[in-house]
Amino acid sequence: MSAPAASSERASESVQQAGAEHVEPLRVGLLGHGTVGSAFARLLAERSEAIAARTGRRPQVEAILTRSSGSFEEVLDGSEVVVELIGGLEPARTWVLEAMSAGRHVITANKQLLCEHGEELFDVAHSNGVALRFEAAVAGVVPVIRVLTESLASLDVDRIHGIVNGTTNFVLSAMERGASYEQALAEAQASGFAEADPSEDVSGRDAAAKMAILARLAFRTPVKLADVPYEGIERLQSDDLQYARELGLGLKLIGTAERIGDGLSVRVHPAFLYGGHPLASVTGSFNAVTVEAEAITEITLSGPGAGGRATASAVLGDLVSVIESGRGAGRVPAAAPLRLLEDTESPFYLHVEVADKRGVLVAVAAILDRWGASIKSVLQRGLGDNARLVMVTHPLSEARLRAAVEEIGQLELVRSPPRAIRVIEEEFT
Amino acid sequence: MSAPAASSERASESVQQAGAEHVEPLRVGLLGHGTVGSAFARLLAERSEAIAARTGRRPQVEAILTRSSGSFEEVLDGSEVVVELIGGLEPARTWVLEAMSAGRHVITANKQLLCEHGEELFDVAHSNGVALRFEAAVAGVVPVIRVLTESLASLDVDRIHGIVNGTTNFVLSAMERGASYEQALAEAQASGFAEADPSEDVSGRDAAAKMAILARLAFRTPVKLADVPYEGIERLQSDDLQYARELGLGLKLIGTAERIGDGLSVRVHPAFLYGGHPLASVTGSFNAVTVEAEAITEITLSGPGAGGRATASAVLGDLVSVIESGRGAGRVPAAAPLRLLEDTESPFYLHVEVADKRGVLVAVAAILDRWGASIKSVLQRGLGDNARLVMVTHPLSEARLRAAVEEIGQLELVRSPPRAIRVIEEEFT
Repeated sequence: MSAPAASSERASESVQQAGAEHVEPLRVGLLGHGTVGSAFARLLAERSEAIAARTGRRPQVEAILTRSSGSFEEVLDGSEVVVELIGGLEPARTWVLEAMSAGRHVITANKQLLCEHGEELFDVAHSNGVALRFEAAVAGVVPVIRVLTESLASLDVDRIHGIVNGTTNFVLSAMERGASYEQALAEAQASGFAEADPSEDVSGRDAAAKMAILARLAFRTPVKLADVPYEGIERLQSDDLQYARELGLGLKLIGTAERIGDGLSVRVHPAFLYGGHPLASVTGSFNAVTVEAEAITEITLSGPGAGGRATASAVLGDLVSVIESGRGAGRVPAAAPLRLLEDTESPFYLHVEVADKRGVLVAVAAILDRWGASIKSVLQRGLGDNARLVMVTHPLSEARLRAAVEEIGQLELVRSPPRAIRVIEEEFT
Repeated sequence: MSAPAASSERASESVQQAGAEHVEPLRVGLLGHGTVGSAFARLLAERSEAIAARTGRRPQVEAILTRSSGSFEEVLDGSEVVVELIGGLEPARTWVLEAMSAGRHVITANKQLLCEHGEELFDVAHSNGVALRFEAAVAGVVPVIRVLTESLASLDVDRIHGIVNGTTNFVLSAMERGASYEQALAEAQASGFAEADPSEDVSGRDAAAKMAILARLAFRTPVKLADVPYEGIERLQSDDLQYARELGLGLKLIGTAERIGDGLSVRVHPAFLYGGHPLASVTGSFNAVTVEAEAITEITLSGPGAGGRATASAVLGDLVSVIESGRGAGRVPAAAPLRLLEDTESPFYLHVEVADKRGVLVAVAAILDRWGASIKSVLQRGLGDNARLVMVTHPLSEARLRAAVEEIGQLELVRSPPRAIRVIEEEFT
């Protein structure tokens, strides 16, 4: 079989199943040989016979670019499909673009690249008639990319909620069991679920990049990381988790992408979830995504969000699909993309440490009222040095809530900056 | 575009995306116009422009066979893709085979047909180079067929656990809230979640057919309904659910397909699930499936298992995939299918109503011991007329357990036939 050609039909033919009768090798070029790259090479070697029996092509890694050996040109020359697992923006972007321009199908796990240069990549894939697949870029082995771009391709998605960062979910699960944030993070690091510098994860930035990709696919609207406001888990306290538990709520770092009128809100922040929400029971380092659309109500997908072998499995699933159909998830955007919204309304949980004195509730309530926040329930009130107001508001915009919180924090009777966390309530039965 | 041809390449070309530039109609023939059929026709009409923008083909229903109008020949002549939603074995089997033999891609939601004649259908699809897709046949809009046959195609699946019947899950959820079986069933019927004659659902037979299909796909071993032992929910009592709740367990009707050595066990029965199991929190009429494989740990998919519009969405997802790739989930079985097992070991919960007299525990324990059942825990023991033994055994074969239960039931000190329910324990952390 010759090197892949640039036109759609020929590129597709060159890898397509020819029947189980005759098995030909399929040359895979691998960029990157770190945790995921080496796990992928091993898994591919283990599964190549099974793939051959199924597809009529036996994939084998023909060339590898590591930190110390190999070159991009060798990988390109030796491959029909290029698997990019080096991460980061450059040289990944240049190489992926060159590979696709040279007629190679590309599989990548690079969320940053897709988030920042998605439109360019989708265009080049489309114009060269090659597949660009990236299941492993979001939520590891959880097949959310495939489900959004294939099963639900023809539906109008209304909303996506996702736990798309395993590190933060692990930390929150440990805090739910009573650990402090610092203890929980140390436990995550010791278990390999958090990096030495965890800031990308705990800040919500990693989740924001993934939500940008999901939003792009579900709403056909280009979204970059800079468009996604995000808030991490660094300022959560164990007692927030305790309240959640007492109230039968989950407290998770939730990524949201939702259509509101003709607008699109994409954001990441901690949120209290009512107990029956499908994401409330997702614990440890697992990821999960709920997709809501009128025709289907909702579906939820969950599984390991990280781990070399699980991520490698997602890459391998993409490879099998490239062999079988040669098509990818990249689509040109809709002619009329949605307008990106910066602020959205939701109920908020507010936690205010106050002096145990007359008038404090009145003072706080007056400020909330002035900013249009009506109080739905006051959950708890301690005494003396531990006195605190814990309340849940009716839905209001984050901007108004933040302004109210700022003012409340300046009250003399308030002992420390108030904490505000969004609440996701039940909307259907 | 001409009528589809019988060879793989030509059939595929005839529906494949030609670029968004020129949009041609795609003629869909519809067999059946009941709940799902009419919901599909409506949904397709609503979404045809979106599909055209995406795929370059605008699908439209060209011919419909209803109970009172149309003919199979008209549907065949007027279509490139045939959607079979009449259900049952005949004439569905004949028509689906004829349609595929005439080069039509086929989409069906017919679990019975796939379960009984899957091998014949897969062979005919393969030899005619047409797609046969059937996402809607199992778990409604939950994309388990796609995930098993595409995302996880190259992996060795170890086990599938599924809640694949929404009626029984609805009934059990109502019983968990305190309703009797009869009340819960009446509630399900009133809400449209159970049919007037619910026996297909409550007996476990519907779930067994679906598990046969999932087992076939995951383990590449032909499985028919007759190969799947099933037990329903008719004999469960509210207090079984109460115990489950007290113990933090879920009680669900679970379908299982698992590899044990070189054997395959496929079965359906009520089971207690430990609280952290991903299926334990699935309530109401939802369906959910957990797939375990070494490389991925496990993934879980959940969503509505029924409803005309949700099922129609699954059919529509299949249609988009047929347009885009022309390929289906049907595969020829592996050369070495697994041997079907009839009996498997598991822990059992045992509920025995006994006389409140000395010696009863000894008598029961002696019988269990004789059959090789060792007791892991005795959970509860009432007094007087309500005296009962509630215990959990260590794993043993169902045959041995049933023999022990039979003998225990004949003890003079035992007031009614003992109830035995399997327990699914945590196996990983």
